[in-house]
Amino acid sequence: MEPSELKYDDKGLIPAIVQEADTGEVMMLAYMNSDSLRMTLETGYTHFWSRSRQEFWKKGATSGELQEVREVFYDCDRDTLLIKVIQHGGGACHTGERTCFFSRMELTKKEDN
Amino acid sequence: MEPSELKYDDKGLIPAIVQEADTGEVMMLAYMNSDSLRMTLETGYTHFWSRSRQEFWKKGATSGELQEVREVFYDCDRDTLLIKVIQHGGGACHTGERTCFFSRMELTKKEDN
Repeated sequence: MEPSELKYDDKGLIPAIVQEADTGEVMMLAYMNSDSLRMTLETGYTHFWSRSRQEFWKKGATSGELQEVREVFYDCDRDTLLIKVIQHGGGACHTGERTCFFSRMELTKKEDN
Repeated sequence: MEPSELKYDDKGLIPAIVQEADTGEVMMLAYMNSDSLRMTLETGYTHFWSRSRQEFWKKGATSGELQEVREVFYDCDRDTLLIKVIQHGGGACHTGERTCFFSRMELTKKEDN
C-alpha cells in the first residue's frame, strides 16, 4: 500500500490516530496529507499537516516531544491511519498533559430500574 | 461539557476514536454529529452518523456487535472524541476482523550507517 492509494478527504487530508506502542494510550489525533505520510514513513518520525497554519509540522521539532514510529496501520476503508509510536519527552499535548484526551464527558444514561 | 460545546467540522461532524477499554486496542474511527453523541451518552451505546448513507447508525444494531460505552473523552482542541467501550460480539470491523486497523504499511526508513 502506497500513500497515494489511501483515501483523502476533499482537502487532501487523512486523520491519523497516534497511540503509544507500549502503553496503548491514545495520545492525539492529527491530519496528514500524502506528503506528510511519506515523510513519516521515510524518517520514522511523525509529520502532520497543520490545518490552521497550512504547513508541514514535524511533531516535537521545537518541543523535543518527538514521536518515533513503530508501526503504521490503515483501516478497512483506507481513510484513517493508526500510528503506533514511542512518545519522547513529557507527552503529546501542547497543554503539558501526557495525552490530548484528558477531559471526560459525563454519561447521561438513565439507570434501568 | 455539553455536546453543543464541541467543535464540529463544516459538515457538523466530529471524529470519534473507539478504543476497547480493557485491552487498549483501537477498534475504529467513525463520525458523530451532536445528536448521535447525545444518543451515545444517553443510551450508553455508540451511535454514529453515516457519511455515505446520511443516517444515524447504532453500531451493531443488526450484527449484535454493540459497543457499550465506559468513558467518553474529548481532546484539548475539543474537535476529537475518544470513546472507551466494551466491544460485544466478534469485533468492530464489517470484514470480520476484530479491529478495522488490521493492515500495516511498510516503513521506508533508511537505516543509519
